[in-house]
Order: sequence, then structure tokens, then C-alpha cells
Amino acid sequence: MVDESLLMQRMSGRKLSGLIAATYTPMKQNGDLNLDVVPGMVEKLLSDGVSGLYVCGSTGEGMSLTTQERKSVAAAYVSATAGRAPVIVQVGHNSLREAQDLASHAQQIGADAISATCPSYFKVSSSESLTHCMRDLASAAPETPFYYYHIPMLTGSNIDMVDFLTRADKAVPTLVGLKYTDTKLFEFQRCLELSNRKFDVVWGCDEMLLGATATGARAAIGSTYNLAASIYRQMTLALASGQLETARQWQSKSIEMICTIGRYPFHPAMKAILTMQGLDVGPCRLPLESLTQSQTDSLRESLKAIGFFEWSGDLPAPSDA
Amino acid sequence: MVDESLLMQRMSGRKLSGLIAATYTPMKQNGDLNLDVVPGMVEKLLSDGVSGLYVCGSTGEGMSLTTQERKSVAAAYVSATAGRAPVIVQVGHNSLREAQDLASHAQQIGADAISATCPSYFKVSSSESLTHCMRDLASAAPETPFYYYHIPMLTGSNIDMVDFLTRADKAVPTLVGLKYTDTKLFEFQRCLELSNRKFDVVWGCDEMLLGATATGARAAIGSTYNLAASIYRQMTLALASGQLETARQWQSKSIEMICTIGRYPFHPAMKAILTMQGLDVGPCRLPLESLTQSQTDSLRESLKAIGFFEWSGDLPAPSDA
Amino acid sequence: MVDESLLMQRMSGRKLSGLIAATYTPMKQNGDLNLDVVPGMVEKLLSDGVSGLYVCGSTGEGMSLTTQERKSVAAAYVSATAGRAPVIVQVGHNSLREAQDLASHAQQIGADAISATCPSYFKVSSSESLTHCMRDLASAAPETPFYYYHIPMLTGSNIDMVDFLTRADKAVPTLVGLKYTDTKLFEFQRCLELSNRKFDVVWGCDEMLLGATATGARAAIGSTYNLAASIYRQMTLALASGQLETARQWQSKSIEMICTIGRYPFHPAMKAILTMQGLDVGPCRLPLESLTQSQTDSLRESLKAIGFFEWSGDLPAPSDA
Amino acid sequence: MVDESLLMQRMSGRKLSGLIAATYTPMKQNGDLNLDVVPGMVEKLLSDGVSGLYVCGSTGEGMSLTTQERKSVAAAYVSATAGRAPVIVQVGHNSLREAQDLASHAQQIGADAISATCPSYFKVSSSESLTHCMRDLASAAPETPFYYYHIPMLTGSNIDMVDFLTRADKAVPTLVGLKYTDTKLFEFQRCLELSNRKFDVVWGCDEMLLGATATGARAAIGSTYNLAASIYRQMTLALASGQLETARQWQSKSIEMICTIGRYPFHPAMKAILTMQGLDVGPCRLPLESLTQSQTDSLRESLKAIGFFEWSGDLPAPSDA
Repeated sequence: MVDESLLMQRMSGRKLSGLIAATYTPMKQNGDLNLDVVPGMVEKLLSDGVSGLYVCGSTGEGMSLTTQERKSVAAAYVSATAGRAPVIVQVGHNSLREAQDLASHAQQIGADAISATCPSYFKVSSSESLTHCMRDLASAAPETPFYYYHIPMLTGSNIDMVDFLTRADKAVPTLVGLKYTDTKLFEFQRCLELSNRKFDVVWGCDEMLLGATATGARAAIGSTYNLAASIYRQMTLALASGQLETARQWQSKSIEMICTIGRYPFHPAMKAILTMQGLDVGPCRLPLESLTQSQTDSLRESLKAIGFFEWSGDLPAPSDA
Repeated sequence: MVDESLLMQRMSGRKLSGLIAATYTPMKQNGDLNLDVVPGMVEKLLSDGVSGLYVCGSTGEGMSLTTQERKSVAAAYVSATAGRAPVIVQVGHNSLREAQDLASHAQQIGADAISATCPSYFKVSSSESLTHCMRDLASAAPETPFYYYHIPMLTGSNIDMVDFLTRADKAVPTLVGLKYTDTKLFEFQRCLELSNRKFDVVWGCDEMLLGATATGARAAIGSTYNLAASIYRQMTLALASGQLETARQWQSKSIEMICTIGRYPFHPAMKAILTMQGLDVGPCRLPLESLTQSQTDSLRESLKAIGFFEWSGDLPAPSDA
Repeated sequence: MVDESLLMQRMSGRKLSGLIAATYTPMKQNGDLNLDVVPGMVEKLLSDGVSGLYVCGSTGEGMSLTTQERKSVAAAYVSATAGRAPVIVQVGHNSLREAQDLASHAQQIGADAISATCPSYFKVSSSESLTHCMRDLASAAPETPFYYYHIPMLTGSNIDMVDFLTRADKAVPTLVGLKYTDTKLFEFQRCLELSNRKFDVVWGCDEMLLGATATGARAAIGSTYNLAASIYRQMTLALASGQLETARQWQSKSIEMICTIGRYPFHPAMKAILTMQGLDVGPCRLPLESLTQSQTDSLRESLKAIGFFEWSGDLPAPSDA
Repeated sequence: MVDESLLMQRMSGRKLSGLIAATYTPMKQNGDLNLDVVPGMVEKLLSDGVSGLYVCGSTGEGMSLTTQERKSVAAAYVSATAGRAPVIVQVGHNSLREAQDLASHAQQIGADAISATCPSYFKVSSSESLTHCMRDLASAAPETPFYYYHIPMLTGSNIDMVDFLTRADKAVPTLVGLKYTDTKLFEFQRCLELSNRKFDVVWGCDEMLLGATATGARAAIGSTYNLAASIYRQMTLALASGQLETARQWQSKSIEMICTIGRYPFHPAMKAILTMQGLDVGPCRLPLESLTQSQTDSLRESLKAIGFFEWSGDLPAPSDA
């Protein structure tokens, strides 16, 4: 039984906003968890002005961890954050019973919200079926707001999100919104505006944040906010003050950074950069491949060449042309 | 031999801007061309403030016409427009020799530019191969600016456009830019900014024009500019004057219109609406299916229900919230 | 350290042959496991002449079970089979550490072989990376033969299997072959014949078994061998005795059965049929949807109409035309 | 108006059988047609025992030719063959009106059958729509048998062929069967057996011909029958006489050949081999890339290494093991 008043209270006026880091999962060289690094990670992110954490998502290699490890990672981030920013725990799993276990645990440790992909080995092919899955999953955390994690490129389930939100609104009492990781701005806008802006629809493609913000995004979840939140903050400030050309320059810097990193296996390269910045988050796990030393060196040089290590600190705003 | 000075003169200061209608090809009920409708079509578009015409593209069913018909359609639009706005003729074909014939013809009749998809029966799978194809094609119209038409959803060729522009810049002397019909705003932005903004990169997804304009788009080619250019013009005006919320409302109206139309076969429904508006452009040809009378009636009612027939005339601007 | 002599001994002369049932996982109406049904299931399969069991694969909804449940199911099948036929346990998981845990458990309980898909949330995109993943996974069961489970339609990893076998032969000491679930007979044949027929490559598409057997298949793993093994046995007998036309008639019956079942959600319908036949294996779990009562009734009638309930018992062989 | 009696007479007892070469289109180095080579090509094929010719298909680069060129190629092959074997002309085109023109021409020159893909720029997505398209197309050659050319990998239209044949049987009076170019043997078998074996369903994947023949194929259309028909003839003879192991060895040789050629751009490499064999068919046209001289040399060496130039002449049959 869902205590709706409690849930409403919890969520009232609590739509996510700003830049939410999809956090990395620190590992040792042998792939074991290295949770000692989490508190430092959290302090860095909070001091960078990040407004929330999304834990054990694609960035955090959630699907590559064991259930027990996912619980440990979630607990470490919730504990280190200590209420200073909302922590959202991603609990999607091919086994909905494992997902329920993760959801229940996330509620117990005081996560501010849960989020989940659908199962992806067997493909979910209708919004009705997706609703059934998410209803069962979310019921295991009946007092915790739930964000469906739409990432069709990885799940293979390309369900119409307006259909899903409309249908799931009644069936999933804790549903509050989406993590929307696709490039279809028009579908994103429809979701944002649906039912008198009822849903909290969070943008998931860092490299298109300018267009998304112009279209109405108020919050974004992404991996590059771990590294360079200031770029994006400057961008949204410029947009808000009508300085479109300046906003484009900041987005352009973000794209240049992402393209540079994207010449390497993406998440392993991101972890290597965090390590360069003093947070030893280690390698990724298979099936993501690790960077060789020579790749790491080459990555560092490429980032230097585009001035990345200056941007990622405090930034003077460029003036509008 | 390309007369570069002539070409430069022609193109200097001539980047496309504003809303360019991807025109429909008027047909009789039996599918024959009905070119008598073209002059009325052109007058309507020019009086709606459209700043260019893109002829025989996907919207114009170019691929469903014979080569001779494509030439007739192109000539009819060039003649009716009479230099009052640029006319771009799409000449892509599975047979590059047919495409060359179309390109040469377009130049002869005074088209302002040509544009072409790559062949799509055999898939083009590298930017090198795409460059070879476009070099051969464009060489048949050596004095006419050329826009590659990137529409991976239909061609199946998802080549990186930054790679292509970089490579083709040297190999294709008449290349001036792209018709970019995909949802990857970050790739679009990179193309726009490449080589000190050398290329004229035109946006092709009407339902995402707000995000694209915020990101830097200056021109857009699309089918719904035939119907409701005023919506989009109000949107870009609002954005330019810093009224983001108003701009979103206009984009929202566009999306509502497109979703309503999209419940029917899209282009046949678009043609039915033009006919409702007094321009009898007839049905589409197979493989696009025609609307039944009952579908047409239902479409009209759905459009009425969302107020479409008011929008598509002159529009009072909503004020920013 | 792999004891190669022990492994060789175990596998020597032990290539799989005949029809291996991809077993279903019996469940209660609420989706809980119902392992009491396993012994009856095993007796039925062995008395039907099935020559092996493949447990917790796609058919067995392995990915939809928790790790603990997968261990229980594997143990139940190994125990009930009691050495009378080889039992292969599928241990693939998005988390390779969970997969290792499952592999280690399978070895402990005396499974004759393990098998695994690659992780599929993050896509494995090279044979090198697939080799890394399978090396790590299989190392957790160093004395148990390993079959890679190639099912690109579900994993999204369409690696060339000849490349993989060639590369993995050295890197994965326990690798003995493949469960090949794709329709490319030519790739299957190349894998069969590679390295002087070193690998045990098992066919996975029941509806194409005739073509595969003609091409060289000696063993097949599939779901419909749970229901109608006699059809396929008659088919292979006919082929072996040169009665091609008769063999086609048996394959044709198999296809008719599969198409009839395929008008419903496939695995739920298969479970419903097993229940009709007296083995109450219950429904499937989400994300697979359950059959409604009316679907179940309609399925029964459709099967009656094609004579299925006669075929699935003992069958007189049709004579060659 | 279709003269059914004439059509029936023409087709009665005339199902295709044996190996039908999908012919190449001879070209000069500059890509112009080189039709002088056609008679020599035809003599070689007939003396190789090929039982029919399929002209202007994918192999013949039909889609890369102009309409006029396609007519010339078709006429050259019909004329050179002079009734000694059936000639099937592929007339598929994105423009159904161009396709009708080609179909009408093929009938006029006495082609024994026509065949066509569906349009593929706009995707055909239902069997109903496919029927509409093929009805219109085939009506332009009302006295000529028609084979739908199913090749979903290139057209992107993956319509269920049993549905299509059932529906089109009534709507398309000249429909006699399919060129089936996909790997789904079960769908192929269903099509073969449909309506009491009414349809002439011809197999299109050379590298799986053994499995297809075991499953019931009586005719095959493919490109490698231009080069090495004797391999396949030996294979089918071995199968017919119950020598399965020998049949597999011949298929294995075919696969080895195809894999060797497939390391290069396939059709350009095939044309290079025909040229090595004394028939100067020239290069392919863009979008297919030509082989460099060094690729050609390397291809020749690779083929020598697998003994290809011995196989492609007369072959002593290996004996069954």
C-alpha cells in the first residue's frame, strides 16, 4: 500500500533541476570495488555545483556489478552525500526480482529516488508490457519516487514515451518522470508538457543540452558533469540571459571534449581522466575494455591540446559576440 | 572545368536562411503529374514568407517519379518561382548516371542549387566512398552549388558528416553544405562550426527546429513549412527576442500538428491538407498509400480539434509567461 | 590451473549428439519457482529420447531469474537427471562476476558443461573483446567444458564465429564449441569444419533442422524438443536413410507447429502446452507476458486443428513419395 | 486484360530448375556498357550447364544503370540466349512507373519472365502495400510470368512472404513465385509448400544451397554460378544420390571460395575473376568501388592458394567418406 500523502510530500516541489552527475563506480586495478574513493568523489561533485547524483546507471556500470556490489555502491553514495543533494539509484536488471531487491534496498538506505531501465535480454515491445514490468519493479519501493530510464540504444526497447507515461501514470503510483536518453527533442518536449507538466523529464544527452534546455529541460543527468560541470553551467546561464552565441560556444567546447574522449572507449577514458584529476576511480570492468598506458598518454595529450585542463577548473565566461 | 570565380560569385553571401519548403509534387487522381497547380503553390509559399523551395526531395516523392517527370517538376518550380527565391533541385538516384542527367538538367534550367542523397539500394558505407559518389554526381552541374542530402533513416547510410565534409571539401568543388535530416544536434553543430563556419548546413527536422535554432541553425528545409510557416516564423522571432517560453509554445503547436498528421500516412495526409486549403495537389503515388475518404474526413476533424485551421493563417503572437 | 588431461578425458568422444531440450523453468501462478515439477519433466524428456538438457537458457528464462534461483534450477535438473544425459547450464549474465558465480556453482553441482551468452546491455563488438569476456567467465569453472551461446538476435552481438573460435581456442582452455542460434548455415558449416572439426557446434533453430542436419549438424538444442522430439527424430532418420521427401514432411510438420504457437507469445504458449500435456510448468515471468485463458483455449483448438496432439505421441513414419 | 490461357500455357510445366546465373553487366573501364561481351558470357554460361539467366539484378548492378541501359542489357542477354534457356529480367525501381516501363520492354523483347524488388527508398511495410505495388508493376507486362524478388537486406522490407504470396495470388495475375534471398529456410519451405506447391520459389543464397536443396529447393539464382557452377552441380548430384558427406564437401568448397572473394568488395572482385577467366566484364560502377591492381593481384593469389582455378573447370567428384 502506497502512502500517497507521504510520497506527495516527499516529491512536492522536488522536481530535479540543474546538472546531475551519473557517477562512476570506483574500482581497483583488479576490478574489485574501491568504495574508499566515493566520499572524495562526492565532495568534488558537490563543490563543482552538481545538484544530484545518479548511481549505478550506464556510466556507473550498474549492469556489470553483482547485486551485492550494487547495494554497496548505492549505500556508499547515499551515505557520503548525506542529504546534501538527491541521490537516485538505478536498479534496472534483466531479472525483475533482482531489480525489486535492489529497489527495496535503495528505499531502505534512504535513496531519494530510484530509476530503472526495462529488461533488455528479452525485448519489451509495447507500452503495456513496459507498464507491467515497471509496476512490478516499482512496487518494491512504494515510498520512493520512480524515474523510468529510457535509453533505447542500449535496451533495444523503443517504446513511445508519451504512450508509456499516459498509461503508467495510473498503474505505477510512484512514477514521477523519466531519464530521457535519446536524441528526439520533440518526444522529450511532448513528455515535458504532458498532463499539464506533471512529469519530471530529465535530459540525458550532454552533447545536446543547449537544444534541450531551449526546448524546456530543467535538469540533466550525464557522465560529463563529473568532469566539466562548469562548462554546462556557463552554457545554461548564457542561454538564460539571452546570450545565445555564448551558449553555443560553451556547448561547442563540450562537444569538442566529448569527441576527443570518444576516440577511445568512452567510459574507460572518462575514468582515466578522473584519475588524472586526482580521483583514482580505476579501470572499467569487462565487457568495457580498459585503456592501455599508451592510450592513456595519448588521451592526456589530446585533452591538453584542446585546453581541457583549463576548462575543467573555474572558467571565465566568454562574452557574447 | 569548374569556373570557380563564377561559382564563388554565385554563392557569395548566399547562404540559405529562413524556412525553405520541401515542396509537394501535384498529381492527378490517377497519379499523373498535375503541373498546372505549381504556380499557385509557389505563390502561396512566397506569400507565406517561405525563403526557398526544395524540389523533388522525399516530400516531393522525387524517387517515385520517372527521370523525365523529375525534370518537368523541377522546370515547373524554377519557372514559377522566377528568381524570387532560391530553388534547390534534389537529384539523388540509385543510378548515378541518372542523377548526373538530372543534375545537368537542373543547371540548364537555372536551378539555384542541386542536392542529392547517396544511392541507397547498395549502401554507401564510408565517407571515402560517399565522396567518390558525390564527386561524380556533382561534376555534371559544375556551376551549381551542391548540398549533400543526409537522411540516414531513408538511405541507410549513416556516415559521419564531419568526416564527409572534411574529405569532400577538396574533392567536390561545388559542395557548399548539407541538408541535415537527423536528430543528432551535436553532429549538426559540429558541421555548422567546421572550418570556420564554411559550410551551409540546413536543418531538416521541423519538429526539433527550436533546439536546432538555439544551437545555431539559420535555415531549415521541411515539409510542414508548406502548411504552417507562420508557426515556425513566430517561434524563431520569439527565440531571437529572448522569449524562450513563447518559442516553446510555438514549437509545441508544431509538434501537436505533426503528431496529428502522423496518425495517418504522413505525406498523403499532408497532401490532403493542402487540398483542403484550396491547392489540389492530389494523392501520393505508391509505395505511399493514399488516404481513404474516411481517413481524410477524420484527419480534417482532428485538425479542427487542435485549432489547426486558425494557426495556418495569420497568427497573433502569444506573449511570454 | 586447468587440469587439461582431466578435461580432455571428460570431453573425449563426448561431443553432443541428437536432440537436446532447452528446458523450461517450472513456476507457480505467482511466478515463484516450482521445482517439484522438475523430476517429472526430466523423466518425460528422457523417455522421449532427448539426449541432453540445456538449463536456464532463453527458453528457461535464465535471465529473468535471480542468481539464487538459477542455482536452484540448475541443481534440480542436474539432480533429477542423475547422469543419464548431459546437463548444460547456461550462466550468461550482464555482470560477468555473477556469471562466474553461476559457472562455479554449476561445476560444483556436477553440470556436464556450461554455456553462456555474452553481456548484452553493453554490446560486445569485437571477437577480441568477446574472447576477453568468455575467458574470464569460463575461468570460474576450469574443469567444465564451455559452449559459447551465440544468439545475436537477443544479445545484439553479431561477432563472426569463425574469428571467435580461432581466437578463443587458445585463450579459453575449456572452450569446446558453440550453441549456434542464427540462420546463417554457411557460418555454421564453417564453424563445424574449422580446425579439422575440432569444435562441437550445436544447432539452435528447430525450424531449420533439416537444412542444418544436411549441412552437417549432429546435435541440436531447442525448445520444441520438449514437446515433439519424435517429429525431429523421424526427420533425421529419414534423412539418414536417404528419404529426403519424408524428411521434408516432418520438418514441415515442425514448422506448422511452430507457426501455430508463434501466433501467441511463444514461450508462454509453449509452457501452456506442456501444462496441457500434464506437466504443470505454470506461466512465464515478466517481461514475457502470460497467456489469457481465452488465448490458452484458442491455442488448444489451433493445435487440435493441425493434429498436434497426435504427433506429439508416438508417430508412424510416413513413407517416401 | 491478361490472356490467362496464354500465360498458363507459357508457364505450364515451366517451373525453373537448376542453377540460374545472376549475370554481370559488362562495362568498359570508364563505366560505359560493353555489350559486345554479352554473347561470350552467355556461351560460357550455357556450356557450363547453367539453366537460366537472371539479368539486371543486384549482381548485374541493375539499380546502378539508367533505364535505357537496363533495356539494352536485357535485350543483349535475351538476344544472345536465343531461347536456349529462360531469361528473367529484373525491373525493380524506386519509381514504379520506370519499373513499368522496364517491365513492358522486357515483355516486348521476349523475356521469359520478369522479376522485381519493391521500391526501397520509401520502405514498404505491409504485405498489403507490397501487393499494391507489385500489382501495378506487373500489370505492365500482362503476359509475362512475374517473380517477386525478396531481398530484405537490401530493400529494408521484411514482409512475411507467406502472407504476401497468399494475398498477391489473387491480386497479381502473373505472379508465379519468388526469388528468395534470405537465410530463413523455414520461411522458404513454407513458401514452397504453400497452396499445394503452387509457387515457384527460387533460392538465392549460394552459400546455403545444400541446406536449401535438402529442404526442397529445385532452382537457385546466384552470382557464383557464373564462376563455378560445376561445384554446385556436383553438390546437388551427391545429395540426390544420398552422398551427404560428399555434398557437404562441395558446399564447403563454395563457402571457401565465397569467403575468399568476400575479403574484397564482393561484386567488383567477382568481375575481376571473370576477367581473369577470359571474359573482360570490366569494373563495377559506383557506389560499388573498383578493385585496385594490388587488390586484384592479391585476390588472384588467394584464389590460387585454395585451388580455385582447378575447381572452376571440370571437376572430378570426390568420393563419399
